[in-house]
Amino acid sequence: VPTAASSPLAGLGSQIAALQECGHDFWRRGWSLGTSSNYSLVVARDPLELLLTASGRDKGRLGSDDFVRVGADGVPTSAGQPRASAETLLHVVAARQPGVGAVLHTHSATATVLSDLCSAAAGVELAGYEMLKGLAGVDSHQHAEWVPIFENTQDIPALAAEVGAALNGTATARPHGYLIRRHGLYTWGRDLAEARRHVEVFEFLFECELRRRGATAP
Amino acid sequence: VPTAASSPLAGLGSQIAALQECGHDFWRRGWSLGTSSNYSLVVARDPLELLLTASGRDKGRLGSDDFVRVGADGVPTSAGQPRASAETLLHVVAARQPGVGAVLHTHSATATVLSDLCSAAAGVELAGYEMLKGLAGVDSHQHAEWVPIFENTQDIPALAAEVGAALNGTATARPHGYLIRRHGLYTWGRDLAEARRHVEVFEFLFECELRRRGATAP
Amino acid sequence: VPTAASSPLAGLGSQIAALQECGHDFWRRGWSLGTSSNYSLVVARDPLELLLTASGRDKGRLGSDDFVRVGADGVPTSAGQPRASAETLLHVVAARQPGVGAVLHTHSATATVLSDLCSAAAGVELAGYEMLKGLAGVDSHQHAEWVPIFENTQDIPALAAEVGAALNGTATARPHGYLIRRHGLYTWGRDLAEARRHVEVFEFLFECELRRRGATAP
Amino acid sequence: VPTAASSPLAGLGSQIAALQECGHDFWRRGWSLGTSSNYSLVVARDPLELLLTASGRDKGRLGSDDFVRVGADGVPTSAGQPRASAETLLHVVAARQPGVGAVLHTHSATATVLSDLCSAAAGVELAGYEMLKGLAGVDSHQHAEWVPIFENTQDIPALAAEVGAALNGTATARPHGYLIRRHGLYTWGRDLAEARRHVEVFEFLFECELRRRGATAP
Repeated sequence: VPTAASSPLAGLGSQIAALQECGHDFWRRGWSLGTSSNYSLVVARDPLELLLTASGRDKGRLGSDDFVRVGADGVPTSAGQPRASAETLLHVVAARQPGVGAVLHTHSATATVLSDLCSAAAGVELAGYEMLKGLAGVDSHQHAEWVPIFENTQDIPALAAEVGAALNGTATARPHGYLIRRHGLYTWGRDLAEARRHVEVFEFLFECELRRRGATAP
Repeated sequence: VPTAASSPLAGLGSQIAALQECGHDFWRRGWSLGTSSNYSLVVARDPLELLLTASGRDKGRLGSDDFVRVGADGVPTSAGQPRASAETLLHVVAARQPGVGAVLHTHSATATVLSDLCSAAAGVELAGYEMLKGLAGVDSHQHAEWVPIFENTQDIPALAAEVGAALNGTATARPHGYLIRRHGLYTWGRDLAEARRHVEVFEFLFECELRRRGATAP
Repeated sequence: VPTAASSPLAGLGSQIAALQECGHDFWRRGWSLGTSSNYSLVVARDPLELLLTASGRDKGRLGSDDFVRVGADGVPTSAGQPRASAETLLHVVAARQPGVGAVLHTHSATATVLSDLCSAAAGVELAGYEMLKGLAGVDSHQHAEWVPIFENTQDIPALAAEVGAALNGTATARPHGYLIRRHGLYTWGRDLAEARRHVEVFEFLFECELRRRGATAP
Repeated sequence: VPTAASSPLAGLGSQIAALQECGHDFWRRGWSLGTSSNYSLVVARDPLELLLTASGRDKGRLGSDDFVRVGADGVPTSAGQPRASAETLLHVVAARQPGVGAVLHTHSATATVLSDLCSAAAGVELAGYEMLKGLAGVDSHQHAEWVPIFENTQDIPALAAEVGAALNGTATARPHGYLIRRHGLYTWGRDLAEARRHVEVFEFLFECELRRRGATAP
């Protein structure tokens, strides 16, 4: 679908198509049901602007008008666009990290249950898995990835500030993603392919962790 | 497939196509196997008429003649149509609620097992999940959705009366859906998109509840 | 793909296409992996002849030459055809029941595990499920379907005789299908649509039974 | 996509297409997520040369340039090709067995968890399953397949030597595949169809073993 040159989405056809395809796959797998999830791409850096899924759209059938262009304040760059998701600021805080070009939020049953089971520890450690090498910069299974779990809230600015502090903290290695309790996963990458790989890696490892907890050793 | 102007389905081609697509997806996910499930759309309001899947059809391969138009009494509006499902009155009672345009009944293994596990309490509480915001009018995860569970019966008029009383009761908030024990889910929405979103939300949350019961905390 | 008039498969193009489509779906769901499973249709009754999947073919990608026509002795009706499955006689014994037009054997992980868990009782009872109404002639969830479980063996003539005796026994109601321990399901119907519905019903109910055993009540 | 005659991939179009299709299916099933897994075909025997997936490619969307041709030393046969996977030597050691034409490495959550649960025994026994007959040369369910489990390491030459010794040992029957702990499955066959059948057989049986451990007998 061509977009008028004056549209804030002008020239973003291939990015939109890539997010549509991504959404269809995640929805098919059960990671983006019920209009949950949001996906964004960095389309300008100075100042920061994101192409973001609009609020409440069906991720299995994203149309070309189910997107919005927002600035670093989380507000649409121009009038007449659909409403941005309430969680836009979480995309902004993730996108502000160095070298990040795409941010993906998914919402699987596995992540929902695991984030609740492990909430007392405020995180889940993923360690000793070969699949960890799918995370950017990890080159051995002998890696321990700490995935922080934040309590869920509807106060997104407060949560965004809390997440931002954790992402920029110096006490621990910068995480590749985090969970919100009973809510889902946020992860990112230098481009959509890397962010999508991170989603697949995390969802796979969450599934391993949850299945491990439901099985008994021989 | 064009439909003769005199057919009770005349002019309903796009609604039928939408239900076919919905059925294929639910069947693919295992929510409508074995010719289970029924789907309906409100096509007239005064008096109420529904476009409904005919009895016993394969939901993964719904043909254009696998539908029937019924009135508020659950009876086809004209002769020569396929037999309506035995559960037609459950669609009618749901469709009579204010603002309802679509009613979906699905039949997943998860809902079947969970409705049995929780039958002693006559319901299951879904609380504290972000996904609850996919239910119309819910704007926080700090919501407790009580999903009533009714005992299964082949006496559909009696069950429809029982359901109708529960939906119109004033003691509790109006539910967004209900379970029939060892049978499945009924939910609805102002249109098919909303009803389908509700199916996805409920099936997701049932899966969370069931997986939670099969895992052990660390 | 047209078939030479002299071929034993001449005129069976639509039946072959229907079995190919069925195989692809079962393979996709994980019910016919690893070249497991066999499907047959009754193509002549007096004497009995079956159109049957040939031995060892990939059920997700059945070609038009992956079928064989066999007689009641389980032997191909003419030379030059592919080898029939070792389990051909199990298809014959099921097809000999009155009114049977199609026989489907599937091989899911769920049926494999459940048939082992319940082998001491030599059967599994499926009772109180609405989905039971998907079995031909069952009109209430208040039905108890006894699914016999036979010990697995490579002596198919002996197993066929044992199954035949059970199917024709008068002590209990004729079953709609049976399990072979750690092997899978045999079911049938008056035509392919009914047999396929029975596969969906049984696989759904096996999944319910197995998930029930892995969950804890609240 | 045609390939220049001088390319090391010249003439391998159909083999590449077959691996692309295989990768898409494995990715869809969750057996090759996050760019995990590697697939290879023997394209020359004397000396041995393999067509292999290049390092770090998305197995759900393999392009025609996501492959590399390597020799028995695991090094690309000519300059200008993509980087070969770090695990190339594991493909070589498997392909050196007599009659092997294809080697597949998959990486499912099931194999990951099971290989960890059973690591103390350094293997998992798969016995008494009809599905075992899907392994080449096995003609009865009364077969016990010992699947060795190797500790994971990033020292692939050392692991390849260890695997090679196990595959060529005379103390036990030659296995049809092996697991690397918390990493995944390696299996092979005389051609891609047989190797793929072995993947389906092993993944099915791993699923059976893991589900069995999560269920309780009645």
